[in-house]
Amino acid sequence: MRAEIISIGTELLLGSILNTNARFLSQKCAENAIDVYYQTTVGDNIDRVAQGFHVAAARADIIIACGGLGPTEDDVTVRGLSKFLSRPLVFHKPTYNWVERWLKVRGRPMTRLVARQCFVPQGALTLQNKKGTAPGVLCHTRFQNADKWILLLPGPPRELEPLFIEKALPLLMREAKIKKECFFTRSVKIAELIEVEVAAKVKDLLKLKPPLTVGIYARPGEVELKIMAKDASSSKARLMALRIEKEIRRRFKEKVYGVDQETLSSVVGALLRKNKKTLGAAESCTGGHFSNLITDAPGSSDYFLGGIIAYSNRIKTSVLSIDGALLKKHGAVSERAAKKMSQNVREILRANYGVAITGIAGPSGGSSKKPVGLVYIAIADGKKTTCCKSRFFGTRTEIKNRSAHKALDLLRLRLLKLKSKKPHARLKK
Amino acid sequence: MRAEIISIGTELLLGSILNTNARFLSQKCAENAIDVYYQTTVGDNIDRVAQGFHVAAARADIIIACGGLGPTEDDVTVRGLSKFLSRPLVFHKPTYNWVERWLKVRGRPMTRLVARQCFVPQGALTLQNKKGTAPGVLCHTRFQNADKWILLLPGPPRELEPLFIEKALPLLMREAKIKKECFFTRSVKIAELIEVEVAAKVKDLLKLKPPLTVGIYARPGEVELKIMAKDASSSKARLMALRIEKEIRRRFKEKVYGVDQETLSSVVGALLRKNKKTLGAAESCTGGHFSNLITDAPGSSDYFLGGIIAYSNRIKTSVLSIDGALLKKHGAVSERAAKKMSQNVREILRANYGVAITGIAGPSGGSSKKPVGLVYIAIADGKKTTCCKSRFFGTRTEIKNRSAHKALDLLRLRLLKLKSKKPHARLKK
Repeated sequence: MRAEIISIGTELLLGSILNTNARFLSQKCAENAIDVYYQTTVGDNIDRVAQGFHVAAARADIIIACGGLGPTEDDVTVRGLSKFLSRPLVFHKPTYNWVERWLKVRGRPMTRLVARQCFVPQGALTLQNKKGTAPGVLCHTRFQNADKWILLLPGPPRELEPLFIEKALPLLMREAKIKKECFFTRSVKIAELIEVEVAAKVKDLLKLKPPLTVGIYARPGEVELKIMAKDASSSKARLMALRIEKEIRRRFKEKVYGVDQETLSSVVGALLRKNKKTLGAAESCTGGHFSNLITDAPGSSDYFLGGIIAYSNRIKTSVLSIDGALLKKHGAVSERAAKKMSQNVREILRANYGVAITGIAGPSGGSSKKPVGLVYIAIADGKKTTCCKSRFFGTRTEIKNRSAHKALDLLRLRLLKLKSKKPHARLKK
Repeated sequence: MRAEIISIGTELLLGSILNTNARFLSQKCAENAIDVYYQTTVGDNIDRVAQGFHVAAARADIIIACGGLGPTEDDVTVRGLSKFLSRPLVFHKPTYNWVERWLKVRGRPMTRLVARQCFVPQGALTLQNKKGTAPGVLCHTRFQNADKWILLLPGPPRELEPLFIEKALPLLMREAKIKKECFFTRSVKIAELIEVEVAAKVKDLLKLKPPLTVGIYARPGEVELKIMAKDASSSKARLMALRIEKEIRRRFKEKVYGVDQETLSSVVGALLRKNKKTLGAAESCTGGHFSNLITDAPGSSDYFLGGIIAYSNRIKTSVLSIDGALLKKHGAVSERAAKKMSQNVREILRANYGVAITGIAGPSGGSSKKPVGLVYIAIADGKKTTCCKSRFFGTRTEIKNRSAHKALDLLRLRLLKLKSKKPHARLKK
């Protein structure tokens, strides 16, 4: 079954609001094995709405239209549908009674404007809207010798979403005889690499066709591969997806940091908790963003003790006890300073791990030797202090964001090594 | 001039991501007197992309397509356009050189995949993308005896937005000879209130029709009213908009914290700089987010000295020198603790202002007396320490975010008072 989603509203064409309905409806269609091939947005104009139905009917079996069901003059969806179907609008008494009751409970009177919402194209089914006065509408028609179902939904998401899930979708599945399929999705999250680097390694997977597909999505500091499998059997769909996950892990090894809802911060947190280790941070150029990400994970107080944001050099010497001579000789943005910051914050906060980030976030403050985007990230654990020099690009907030994510990833890799030591220790026995 | 926006990407049809590009492009078209009659979304499929161009060319003069310009097999926009135009793809050497240089600066090699992005339909103009490897493309064609302009833009918003504003739009306006109308937009930013509260106070303004309109947009911790005025005369457009700004300021008074690109953080920063004051922060539940926001403003090292993230109580006593007995008696989430934190961080960092935030971000850790979302924010300046108790709702990150924004706003209001003292002092003379 193919569906087309038509969003109706001039405010969408003016860019005044984001089209969250198209996304919601597309997601629900995907979950129910209804393929969406097109989404269209048209303005509040009867002819263009009717034409929208016409174009959609030529290329889809199901048309889901949302918006423009309100009581005012510029709500024209029902009239546009009536024009496309060449069917008159008729008064629908049961809907009128339902709306009247709905209003009465809320202490409001029925008005002529609201009564207008009870006119629907001849032969239509109506769906009672619990959250507002505009009913949903489902029409069947024949177009170019094929069955077509047209569903109209109110525009406000708080009305549309429950109406679609609870009433419209089950009715549509039944009327259009849509076979129920099972979906299993798995997002595999990859750190460090950028989109083109990931894409180059999974070219074959990105070409997979339904019932098993892989999509690629880039976010700052990470790339997500989304596996989607469908089958009549839920366990088979799951197996198909997990086999692809295994293959992705084989190709990217420890660069795969997690799956689904996991974030770099939650994964680092889980590793710290598992190994009973605590963390403290010394931040300069990231200005608290690393600690902010770490504490986004619920329960982070189990392992995160705190941080010192040493933004001015004075705080680096007074609170972080960095030798002024070191700062003078090497500069605050240097390997020496980063390492010392990580060691000192670890000692001051009495943490197992100290992470330090120092760099130049820009837009000013750079030089040819130390350009904007130069960042040193150090990790100290009391035995060994490592430091990684990076160069990031972008705006000030992008550089802050990439630096904080890079620090999370470096800490993750360090903690992973910690885990792998145990089996070696056992081997020695 | 009529435009149609075509968003290309199966991830949109699956509902995996929100279509923010369609909104952005629609908004910019509206601001430049280009009417958008349709938005369409199609998947990563050459035939359907070509068909999308066909449908759009029949009803629009300008087609703006975004997405599907990446280097992988499922990026088919250029091939779809080539099919629609019946023109071959040709290698574009200047683009290749530009991309090679772009990659070199970032220490990455040119690959065969990336080189594929340098093929464009014969006769196309290319637009250099500062933020990625995919160039923008502009083609002219004749269709049904009329001129048509087709623009291709990369999908990632951070690439699309500057490329459209800085290069594609000016080129399009020139090539398609679009009459320039003068626009003046002004965003008025309001702190503390939520969207419905703001909307209730500007119901009349939200109903205004072009050439003068007001839109409302909500973001965490703030609401934006966007005034848009157009006129043949730029000064008249400006006057119309500023008259509305004045009216909004009259209604919301000091709740209006800024305009246009200003953020709470940049406004607080400007007030600190103007008054030659420095700031230090002690954060508990916000975990560094307040300092992170403060340091998002370029040049924040002028006034922000640093912060102490005292996530564990031990750090509150050891680094922030809070009396353990106080914490035991009143708890870390209390007015007493917040005030002491703000006073101590001010002294430790030797700052003019100390801001402290302590609360329960959840999801666990709440009780009936101290529920999740309870947050104390204190500000100390050496003479007076104030404390504000708030209750926020939402997820953990929402509570962190609202707390940090509230602290920024409280500091702003405190600094505004500082300013208003001067005229009084003068009056006394």
